[in-house]
Amino acid sequence: MNPDLASERQTASFSVEKLTARLDGGAEHTRIRRAVVEAIECDPVFSRENQYFQSQNERYEAAVRKAVHLQKKMHEMGWTEDGPEFKYIYRALSGDIAFLLHRIFMRSISMLGSDKQIAKWIPLATQYQLIGSYAQTELGHGTYLQGLETTAVFDITTQEFILNTPKISAMKWWPGDMGRSATHTVVFAQLYVQGKCYGVHPFIVQIRSLQDHSLCPGITAGDIGPKMNFEHVDNGYLMLQNVRVPRENMLNKFCEVQPDGTYARWGSQKINYFTMTTVRISLISDEVIIPLMKACTIAIRYSVVRRQSKLKPGEQEAKILDYQTQQEKLLPQLAAAYAFHFINNYLQELFDKVYREIQRKKFDTLPELHAFSSGFKAMVTQYCTSAVAICLQACGGHGYSLLSGLPSLYTKIVASCIYEGENTILLLQTARFLIKCFMAAGAGQPVPPSVTYLAAVKPGKCPAKNKLDFLSPDVYTEAYQHMAARLISSTAAKLQDLIQCGVKKTDAWNQCTVQLVQAAKAHCHYITVKNFAETVEKLETKAGIQKIMKHLCDLFALHGIFSNGGVFLHDGYVSGAQMDMVTASYLDLLAVIRKDAVPLVDAFDFTDKSLNSALGSYDGQVYQRLYEWAQKSPTNKQISPAYERYLKPLLHNTLSKL
Amino acid sequence: MNPDLASERQTASFSVEKLTARLDGGAEHTRIRRAVVEAIECDPVFSRENQYFQSQNERYEAAVRKAVHLQKKMHEMGWTEDGPEFKYIYRALSGDIAFLLHRIFMRSISMLGSDKQIAKWIPLATQYQLIGSYAQTELGHGTYLQGLETTAVFDITTQEFILNTPKISAMKWWPGDMGRSATHTVVFAQLYVQGKCYGVHPFIVQIRSLQDHSLCPGITAGDIGPKMNFEHVDNGYLMLQNVRVPRENMLNKFCEVQPDGTYARWGSQKINYFTMTTVRISLISDEVIIPLMKACTIAIRYSVVRRQSKLKPGEQEAKILDYQTQQEKLLPQLAAAYAFHFINNYLQELFDKVYREIQRKKFDTLPELHAFSSGFKAMVTQYCTSAVAICLQACGGHGYSLLSGLPSLYTKIVASCIYEGENTILLLQTARFLIKCFMAAGAGQPVPPSVTYLAAVKPGKCPAKNKLDFLSPDVYTEAYQHMAARLISSTAAKLQDLIQCGVKKTDAWNQCTVQLVQAAKAHCHYITVKNFAETVEKLETKAGIQKIMKHLCDLFALHGIFSNGGVFLHDGYVSGAQMDMVTASYLDLLAVIRKDAVPLVDAFDFTDKSLNSALGSYDGQVYQRLYEWAQKSPTNKQISPAYERYLKPLLHNTLSKL
Repeated sequence: MNPDLASERQTASFSVEKLTARLDGGAEHTRIRRAVVEAIECDPVFSRENQYFQSQNERYEAAVRKAVHLQKKMHEMGWTEDGPEFKYIYRALSGDIAFLLHRIFMRSISMLGSDKQIAKWIPLATQYQLIGSYAQTELGHGTYLQGLETTAVFDITTQEFILNTPKISAMKWWPGDMGRSATHTVVFAQLYVQGKCYGVHPFIVQIRSLQDHSLCPGITAGDIGPKMNFEHVDNGYLMLQNVRVPRENMLNKFCEVQPDGTYARWGSQKINYFTMTTVRISLISDEVIIPLMKACTIAIRYSVVRRQSKLKPGEQEAKILDYQTQQEKLLPQLAAAYAFHFINNYLQELFDKVYREIQRKKFDTLPELHAFSSGFKAMVTQYCTSAVAICLQACGGHGYSLLSGLPSLYTKIVASCIYEGENTILLLQTARFLIKCFMAAGAGQPVPPSVTYLAAVKPGKCPAKNKLDFLSPDVYTEAYQHMAARLISSTAAKLQDLIQCGVKKTDAWNQCTVQLVQAAKAHCHYITVKNFAETVEKLETKAGIQKIMKHLCDLFALHGIFSNGGVFLHDGYVSGAQMDMVTASYLDLLAVIRKDAVPLVDAFDFTDKSLNSALGSYDGQVYQRLYEWAQKSPTNKQISPAYERYLKPLLHNTLSKL
Repeated sequence: MNPDLASERQTASFSVEKLTARLDGGAEHTRIRRAVVEAIECDPVFSRENQYFQSQNERYEAAVRKAVHLQKKMHEMGWTEDGPEFKYIYRALSGDIAFLLHRIFMRSISMLGSDKQIAKWIPLATQYQLIGSYAQTELGHGTYLQGLETTAVFDITTQEFILNTPKISAMKWWPGDMGRSATHTVVFAQLYVQGKCYGVHPFIVQIRSLQDHSLCPGITAGDIGPKMNFEHVDNGYLMLQNVRVPRENMLNKFCEVQPDGTYARWGSQKINYFTMTTVRISLISDEVIIPLMKACTIAIRYSVVRRQSKLKPGEQEAKILDYQTQQEKLLPQLAAAYAFHFINNYLQELFDKVYREIQRKKFDTLPELHAFSSGFKAMVTQYCTSAVAICLQACGGHGYSLLSGLPSLYTKIVASCIYEGENTILLLQTARFLIKCFMAAGAGQPVPPSVTYLAAVKPGKCPAKNKLDFLSPDVYTEAYQHMAARLISSTAAKLQDLIQCGVKKTDAWNQCTVQLVQAAKAHCHYITVKNFAETVEKLETKAGIQKIMKHLCDLFALHGIFSNGGVFLHDGYVSGAQMDMVTASYLDLLAVIRKDAVPLVDAFDFTDKSLNSALGSYDGQVYQRLYEWAQKSPTNKQISPAYERYLKPLLHNTLSKL
């Protein structure tokens, strides 16, 4: 154990184990999680040790191997999809596994298929007698689903749909598991019956032979090539040329083309809305918050092991975490990881509530959940992506080595800003909801509890008199609330003004979008601060947990004010003198939290294998590990042909004979 | 040619060719640059076409091949190191070449070696009878050179230095060309003579045999393994165990160990200072600004080809650059690319001036150049790194494909924040200079012209009355000046206060570093805005160039105020109402510049080969190119063994027999 790291743990102001249990939602969950992690990590098939050395081909093959092996493992361990272990498996694998789209294939059939279709396809999929994918996005269309160009024309004579890719931009592009693995996929296409377009519908299409995996007639498919990360996923392309599927292959829970060509639609499609929301909420924890927690663990442990330069002449070189600038880089990211963990719990609760209501056929709360999950997905992914980039750069050159684990965390998390709804689009959806609520609140109509604050926008001044006042959650929560309400109301006013000046509604909206995005972010930031403060209040006071969480909550809140001073100062709610108090308290907090920085990342409870980092290991043997690991690189195993071919002739001055 | 892209070029408000010539520093330079680019790009050895598909081993080999071939090419073309073509070669190769450290090896001998040493080593290096590297950074030390742990002990009996790596953290780590190529290197080590340490000195050490390239006795060396980018460079590690080099191998222009063990030192070492400065300035253009220009070219061309969703119902889908949010992502980055191009010219001029003075043995202006080059290196690298990340995310999923070219631009540019001086350290050096100048100015002492504004810090109000006033360079330059002066003076005051309260100087400094970094950035931002405005003033008014550059200058300045509102509002210099005017003018400018966005990136004059991007090509055939390129991926050429091994048994339900 590196003594510089060991000493950090001796002075923890709280019980790490208790905080871990709190994060897991109870000690029993911690126990289950650890058992899953242990079982996965002791199995060499799931090893990620060579990951940083592997090619895209090798990563894909390993992911398939793991996915197949996982079936066996689950059987062996007695883990089921409904069991308490299930949610920890993906996390323990760090998502490095194939067939995730197979699950989406199944889910879409369950959601959009009739009972008959479910009865036919789900057992086949469950038993892996086919491998499914989900072909929605096209080369030319992602966000705007109505614009998809793939066509499905009903042929009444054969009772089939004829699917086509009419132009190159209509080619399906990105679907996971489709480039090399899938035998079937759900294709989203514009439905045409007797020349009339009925919009986008889902069709089950077989793309590869179940006998020899060759492409089916009319199918062109392959891998879309190298990406910034996700080498383990065979994101694919798909072209369809007069591919015929039987009438029964259109998923028909909500609508159907009848044998005579009549198009019939029934039931509510609102539930589709809900599916997207489910996916967005579920990705926040595993794909976004956990990677940030890992990045913080790596960067903070490294920052107490790395000594560089001297704080005082004559002394030993200082741990880099003792520099204020390093604290200011890392500790706000650590506070954010906790803030987002708690806001994720909040979203889960909201989700569960809405889910219960939907089961009672009540859809009233769906718009709120949709708006919030959109906004939080955008805010959290963007914030965490920047935070991971900060952690990486804060580790200097060693952070830039793949062996630190940080580059792959960054290149993976950055994708979360784009997939499952591009962030700007999502924030504008949140903004649309907020503007609507603001208008309704102004007109005295009822609005959801989380936005009632919009009804009471008023000028005012922050009451803080000294820097300690800014450690009061009431003071800073109020400041956030005021700021969010002001941004929403002023943007609503601008929108109204433009429309009253004769600008068309759509143009007016576009001219306000920069500010609408800002307002939506402000709302989400406010709710996150408020939720963090409320969570802290409810925490047990013993074992020092509430106290340290209070510090983190303060830091998260004050960091936000310090970094976004303009929106707080704008109308004088916070004065320049008060901003200086914020800055002073903020910088004071850094020094306070710095003392518990290592215990706070230890509480995330990552194993060395799950971090897969030469910088972040529990024992802090950074340099030894970097050296040992680098020696295993293929660049050191293979004698480069470059020597005989180029270097030798050059050095022996035979260049002219080349 | 994609008609959506073609139409953007028909309405250019200025002459693209004239702007290109202005950027190159004259039409003659444009001609020479194009000739170099043409010669490099038509030579298949220099092709980068397969780059995104290659492994680290393949990238290294290609880089060596190119470096060797370049010798021949230069000879063929009649290009010399002193010729006007030379500076365009590296740019034309996009830096994708080996032996760059060989040049640093030569430069360090030229700067630090005696005439005798130069006479011996430089001809050998020039003729590639050896391959050099430069071994400074260690596993445990980067920033703090005095802390290096490698030792060189003088053995008076044999007249040799004995070099050692006393512990693992002392291992040399990162030197380019050293992992696999170099035969020699300059090792920086703590010099010990008769038990006394004389600090860090440079020694020429042979590490590999000139006959068979095997490692020399006592040498352990290899490649440090995979990194976020720079796969083409064999960054290496080096351990030394009792490696002996003759007394003559210590570079001794400034100091020497005489045969009897006497240590002698003479001359000024200030020039070393100058070397670091030279490197920092030279990297800004090729490694930072050019990549940002490329990213802007790719993202902006793509944003007029990509159509998604509708601005107005019933209309065709809109070009994504017509959305205000997309303009707000990309156009400020475009303005920054121009701003930094001009500030780079400013730095070059300052550099040339200082260089002339140094040749007359005058070192007075060196501290200013050092402080500015440090600050600008930090500001420009950080800004451009964020800007490239924005360009990447603004292209959605396609930006995430390596084939867009954007991921490799990002993963490469992010390293520039770390190498050649970590940015926070550099900004603190700038801050130290600024604080010193502020104190001197306050005491009535003379200060360099660029910081005289610090002498006249005074309260005041921005005079702008309406949004058009904020299009006056005087108004916004004044605002930046006021803001920078305020941040520097208030941080100086805090520092003084702490010291007067009895806090030790070093502790006080550490407690102010977050604000010192902010102040240094503010100063650099101010100078950049001021320089942009002054440059615009001097531009020719014809051909529409001055007008569009004025718009970009305004945008760069207002974007900075809009995004950093807090520091302008803090003391009331800018009021909330004025901030609304800034916002209004800023958003107006987006719509104005959007019209010229494509011509403005065309003026950067990148060829398709230099962009190496499926999204950014001149003809805008994005989807066709993505598809054709993806098909060439090795993931599509090789039948994955995963099918026979895992998928087939799984699909044929033979899992249990696995």
